[in-house]
Amino acid sequence: MGVNSGLFIKRAYSTGKYNLITDVAGITVGHADVRQGCAQTGVTVLVPTMDNIFLSKRAAACHVINGFGKSQGLLQIDELGTLETPIVLTNTLAVGACWDALAHYMVEQNPDLTSVNPVVMECNDSTLNDIRAFHLNGDMVREALDQATTVFAEGTVGAGRGMICHGLSGGIGSASRVFALADHSYTIGALVLTNHGLLKDLVISGDPVGERLAAQIETTASDKGSVIVLLATDAPLGARNLGRLCRRAVVGLSRVGGHIGHDSGEIALAFSTANIILHKPDGPIIASRDVADGYLETVFRAAIECVEEAVVSSLWHAETVTGRNGNIALALRDMPHG
Amino acid sequence: MGVNSGLFIKRAYSTGKYNLITDVAGITVGHADVRQGCAQTGVTVLVPTMDNIFLSKRAAACHVINGFGKSQGLLQIDELGTLETPIVLTNTLAVGACWDALAHYMVEQNPDLTSVNPVVMECNDSTLNDIRAFHLNGDMVREALDQATTVFAEGTVGAGRGMICHGLSGGIGSASRVFALADHSYTIGALVLTNHGLLKDLVISGDPVGERLAAQIETTASDKGSVIVLLATDAPLGARNLGRLCRRAVVGLSRVGGHIGHDSGEIALAFSTANIILHKPDGPIIASRDVADGYLETVFRAAIECVEEAVVSSLWHAETVTGRNGNIALALRDMPHG
Amino acid sequence: MGVNSGLFIKRAYSTGKYNLITDVAGITVGHADVRQGCAQTGVTVLVPTMDNIFLSKRAAACHVINGFGKSQGLLQIDELGTLETPIVLTNTLAVGACWDALAHYMVEQNPDLTSVNPVVMECNDSTLNDIRAFHLNGDMVREALDQATTVFAEGTVGAGRGMICHGLSGGIGSASRVFALADHSYTIGALVLTNHGLLKDLVISGDPVGERLAAQIETTASDKGSVIVLLATDAPLGARNLGRLCRRAVVGLSRVGGHIGHDSGEIALAFSTANIILHKPDGPIIASRDVADGYLETVFRAAIECVEEAVVSSLWHAETVTGRNGNIALALRDMPHG
Amino acid sequence: MGVNSGLFIKRAYSTGKYNLITDVAGITVGHADVRQGCAQTGVTVLVPTMDNIFLSKRAAACHVINGFGKSQGLLQIDELGTLETPIVLTNTLAVGACWDALAHYMVEQNPDLTSVNPVVMECNDSTLNDIRAFHLNGDMVREALDQATTVFAEGTVGAGRGMICHGLSGGIGSASRVFALADHSYTIGALVLTNHGLLKDLVISGDPVGERLAAQIETTASDKGSVIVLLATDAPLGARNLGRLCRRAVVGLSRVGGHIGHDSGEIALAFSTANIILHKPDGPIIASRDVADGYLETVFRAAIECVEEAVVSSLWHAETVTGRNGNIALALRDMPHG
Repeated sequence: MGVNSGLFIKRAYSTGKYNLITDVAGITVGHADVRQGCAQTGVTVLVPTMDNIFLSKRAAACHVINGFGKSQGLLQIDELGTLETPIVLTNTLAVGACWDALAHYMVEQNPDLTSVNPVVMECNDSTLNDIRAFHLNGDMVREALDQATTVFAEGTVGAGRGMICHGLSGGIGSASRVFALADHSYTIGALVLTNHGLLKDLVISGDPVGERLAAQIETTASDKGSVIVLLATDAPLGARNLGRLCRRAVVGLSRVGGHIGHDSGEIALAFSTANIILHKPDGPIIASRDVADGYLETVFRAAIECVEEAVVSSLWHAETVTGRNGNIALALRDMPHG
Repeated sequence: MGVNSGLFIKRAYSTGKYNLITDVAGITVGHADVRQGCAQTGVTVLVPTMDNIFLSKRAAACHVINGFGKSQGLLQIDELGTLETPIVLTNTLAVGACWDALAHYMVEQNPDLTSVNPVVMECNDSTLNDIRAFHLNGDMVREALDQATTVFAEGTVGAGRGMICHGLSGGIGSASRVFALADHSYTIGALVLTNHGLLKDLVISGDPVGERLAAQIETTASDKGSVIVLLATDAPLGARNLGRLCRRAVVGLSRVGGHIGHDSGEIALAFSTANIILHKPDGPIIASRDVADGYLETVFRAAIECVEEAVVSSLWHAETVTGRNGNIALALRDMPHG
Repeated sequence: MGVNSGLFIKRAYSTGKYNLITDVAGITVGHADVRQGCAQTGVTVLVPTMDNIFLSKRAAACHVINGFGKSQGLLQIDELGTLETPIVLTNTLAVGACWDALAHYMVEQNPDLTSVNPVVMECNDSTLNDIRAFHLNGDMVREALDQATTVFAEGTVGAGRGMICHGLSGGIGSASRVFALADHSYTIGALVLTNHGLLKDLVISGDPVGERLAAQIETTASDKGSVIVLLATDAPLGARNLGRLCRRAVVGLSRVGGHIGHDSGEIALAFSTANIILHKPDGPIIASRDVADGYLETVFRAAIECVEEAVVSSLWHAETVTGRNGNIALALRDMPHG
Repeated sequence: MGVNSGLFIKRAYSTGKYNLITDVAGITVGHADVRQGCAQTGVTVLVPTMDNIFLSKRAAACHVINGFGKSQGLLQIDELGTLETPIVLTNTLAVGACWDALAHYMVEQNPDLTSVNPVVMECNDSTLNDIRAFHLNGDMVREALDQATTVFAEGTVGAGRGMICHGLSGGIGSASRVFALADHSYTIGALVLTNHGLLKDLVISGDPVGERLAAQIETTASDKGSVIVLLATDAPLGARNLGRLCRRAVVGLSRVGGHIGHDSGEIALAFSTANIILHKPDGPIIASRDVADGYLETVFRAAIECVEEAVVSSLWHAETVTGRNGNIALALRDMPHG
């Protein structure tokens, strides 16, 4: 929930320094967006490492909670278990332009590259943003990459600009947790792009605030729009267990009131910064590490906490946005108290 | 939550007549169990229809939430989208004996049958039951089949006899909902076998009772044991959408505090009584019906409500059980109030 | 194998009129490509119906044989079982530009559309084509859409321009079969984009010609590059059985010598023109049809024949291509006889 | 193809000492069967290691080629990536009895075991065997376990007793290959239980012998019955790559004429003896090894060769069997020459 806003969620684990996914060392996040009239949309980029990620891939996996979505790059992650590009988040119809921009970027960075698997994930911001006008272009991917930093903004920024979560202004949220396995400490973080859920279902730290709010304000009723969950950890998980980690994300979403709407594309992607797969390994046998089964529960529960808090954090940081056709998404922090 | 116990859960939909999965016409459920010292285990059978289910198969699908389990029959359901036997629930090590008994039963009922896909699902009751002694045998499958009725018991009965859910006595739970699609009314029901979760996580209708109870009583700490979710409806869902229905079950589990433990085998299976697939169809083209996308949300949300209430109902109906090594599972209804 | 070239493959079923996927009524195919020096690449578009495919979606499914690929749109097809755009085939790094162009096209065609699932599939033509120069742009998608016709060219045309199959010039291939279920006749067709396989493994109608050719000519050795298989039929298959159809494609590939190389992205996608899913259905219950289990074998075997012959047809129609760095892909028809 | 029978298949790799799966060190195989009148069935057991496999599990994965089958244990292998019991092969309706026997065996061997994942896989031998009479019992699992050895019989023995492959007598087949990765040599082996395919499709080492034979003899026409493929290697593959290995098995089947019949349950399971996962690991982080992507092709192709040859070997070793209703499965070696 960002640096100073840890007021809502009960925590079984302590947070990292900034309570952001970037508490996992090496990760940075950048945003670019447009905020003009009916153009309320943007791009958020997660850079998984300071290394050249194409040459030093990271173990990764993904899970489709509900596949009414257009996210790209999952196919190869499923097969090879590796992440080899930054991850771009954007709106539904900008996926092609962002993929193209990311492919160009990767080509520039890697002189020998003739094949690459760009990862672009999306939610649909068409209530606030005139998505049919294709306001985004590839330059914004570059801008977001250039501006990626350790401490980054949450809420209605970057890809989160025009998103609506549980009937309120949503967008980018993040959180992190520190946990111990035997005598070693690890960090896990979540970054979410929230655009799902009904207001009446909203629960914050066990409090069904959505019921009260739904009695006071009007919102659009349908559970459209999707949610993207990114998870990162410096614990040495392999692809199989990263997939299992992804399959726990839905618990965090449910704890805030998510119901996996028919129309909601809900996808989780996880990677470990501690399992590096070299593009050109030294020999035929490569070593990897993993967390033993008996210790996974700790990692799973820390991930669930991160996801729950990241969703709330996206709401907490979002500002009220007026967009297409004068449609308004109210901010949680502008809600009446009580 | 059974005939008379609808006190806990907020409902957006009304229940069926008995608030049991058998409110879906044609379904019956039977139990058989042993309750002697360290033998606390049993069998529950769901009979999906009064028809010969092998000759008149039902559209079906399943979903693995966490595959640390031994349930059997999912493979063929995934491929063919049909259920062709009753469903047997039992303990982990009794799966083989029950499968064998169910196969014998199907052979007897069908003179030409040389292949059949028995569905047997399980949770591990080894805390209360001396599972290594193989107390169950195939005769109990027959007994449960013989006793299958519309109104059936919940809690620590049948396969639920030795189960522990959220640190309390668990077992069999059921609930149903009635919903309308346009001008037609349909019923959906859930039957769960609960053996998962931590006490501290237990939430009943939004109230975190588990936190209070965990401060008062001691329970075994690990999230072992599994949960099985059966869903049935008379709405004409096809196999693909039944699979999507199954993938919503986890939301119901999460709402009661489930966290998809590493050790917990969690499987959902759904079928529709309204899509019949004949073993010997009349010709090469068969017709089926499905719920249109725009109406699925209603079915999904009704299913989630059923699952949530069925888990609570399993706790509500369970009695305190003393079993192996004097291990005790306390009943929710024996808990201190407040 | 095209109109006049049925000399190679033993057939258990007769072909359609043109022995092309367009023998399935309503389907058209168009190409656009560049053929200048190191720019040897292009786009092929399959238009699934004369209807507005977004408003009248078709039942569809896909299957990943080997997921080392970047094809897009599979996620939503898996979830919803529908195809709602034309299918674009192109080179690996042009996927983003083609997706963007297809999204623009769909927006233009559909005034209310704010979300759509463009399907873009790819193989890597970087041996012959300077893929890093991004020679393709979205205009070529329009050009290919504009030129889509029933009788279309095969071989090194469109997306097939720079492809190498079994060490020889590959690209676009197609074939069709007519089969009867009871007293009704149906058509199935395959369109492949071939860029996979080793020369030594090549088998044509049971004849291991690759062994002989490999002894005579030098080719690049690795099984890189991928193969895309599209299947279409006017038999009323539902999404589940279309998925099963896709899973048979690999048999056709194997019969020509395919070995599912590690580097080879191999994806099959199938749709039925006879199961229409309306974007705005009339009511909550929709009807669909499917082929009964006992008749599927005919459809499966016809599909396998189509895939086998389509791969051979891509080789048969390809011309020798000289591209990047003077690399040459020799045409099968330019091979020494015997 | 057994010790002395390497006459048919072209090999790119040399075979292991016995050309059996047991060339992978530590593996043994045992059989038990009945051969009386209409009782023509049995059990084959593969013991993966001389260690206690429950305490020292092996990395494993599986793949469903066609899920019209009742194999058991795949669910947990998918989730946890480990094999923890011997593998039992048997007939379709004996799965429950064999699972029960294997569970009892594991309980006896492991004093603390309260949960275990028995792997039992099956084909349907009901043409030759009166499967409805349940001739098999759990004692035969013990008998097969007791008799497991390095050099074992192939053909119509054990679970293979009543199987029909490509219209001929089928059953157990095995083959192995030795391959090098850099300067280290590894072994891979396949064990198949063959009960699938049509006579007319049979191809042996590229020769379509089935076409000739089908013109001479009558066989039952349908592609019913299934095929099970077990793969084992001492190369250190992890679960993800073992899954990819399994997905290549279908190429080996196709090369002998397999067409993945609708009725044919076709399942592959692979494990590595070189990746051991301790039941009680020393600490929270475990190490594993894998084959680097650039070297996988060698392993994949060696596996395909093993599968192809193992299928042929099952035919080669099978004897003519007369069973239920006087049905006869002719042996390949009893076929007219030419």
